[in-house]
Parts: sequence; structure tokens; C-alpha cells
Amino acid sequence: MKARVHITLKPGVLDPEGKAIGRGLAALGYDGVGEVRQGKVVELDLADTEPQAARDRVDAMCRDLLANTVIERYEIELI
Amino acid sequence: MKARVHITLKPGVLDPEGKAIGRGLAALGYDGVGEVRQGKVVELDLADTEPQAARDRVDAMCRDLLANTVIERYEIELI
Repeated sequence: MKARVHITLKPGVLDPEGKAIGRGLAALGYDGVGEVRQGKVVELDLADTEPQAARDRVDAMCRDLLANTVIERYEIELI
Repeated sequence: MKARVHITLKPGVLDPEGKAIGRGLAALGYDGVGEVRQGKVVELDLADTEPQAARDRVDAMCRDLLANTVIERYEIELI
């Protein structure tokens, strides 16, 4: 089973990388681009076969390592 | 309109960050975790209203700035 975790900054948290991308796009002439936010995607190959057990394990991995839960939020997708 | 771009390394390209995450999970006692791949997600607020035009513009942004198309591939999602 494969899991994909989307990790993004919580609303209100300053996103300097997103701002830099926004300025870069403007410098390249792309207008009509509002806020830009950047996050991470982590794809995991899991030996689990039972979806709920896999989701619970990945949730624990997120809290332990993958996400900084003070400033980041995460979404788990089983694929 | 909002666009979300998933940028991941092409298969076969070494992913040191993914490997580091894999080792970190193993050190924390998570077994049954195979390959780990890390990528980026960029969310863009666009003034565009016409989906195809928005998709074409974001595609150009990917080739110009967001993705290194030599080693990365990207998927565009309009949300």
C-alpha cells in the first residue's frame, strides 16, 4: 500500500519560500498571481494491507517526524 | 481560481531527503516502510477564470520556474 502525505504551513504562518516564488513569477512577467504557498509531499511504500491501520501508523509518523505540528498541518492520502 | 502543483523527482533520480526520512522512521521503530520519496507542493491563487488558460499558464510557470524539468516531473491540479 502507498501513502501520500501533504504537509503545508498552517494559515497565518509566514511562508518565505512561497513569497520568493511569487516574486520570481512576477519578475518573469506572470501577472494575476495572488498568494503562493509551498509545502511538502512525502510518498511512503507501506507493507500494511489494512487501510485504517496504515492511516493510524502514518498519522503517528507525521506527529513523530514528518510534520512540525506547531506550524504545519498534514493530510494523509492512501493510494 | 486555485492551482496546486505536485512536483516530484523522476523515477531513478536519487532522493537523499527521502532516504533520510526512511532512515529516521526506521530509527524511531517504524518497520514495514519501503521506499520514501519527498516532493514539493505549490499552491497558487490565480486571477484566471478559464480553466484551460489557467492550466496552460501554470504549465509555463512550471517549466520556467517551479520545476527543474531535467530531474523533476509535475502534476497540475485546479481546485
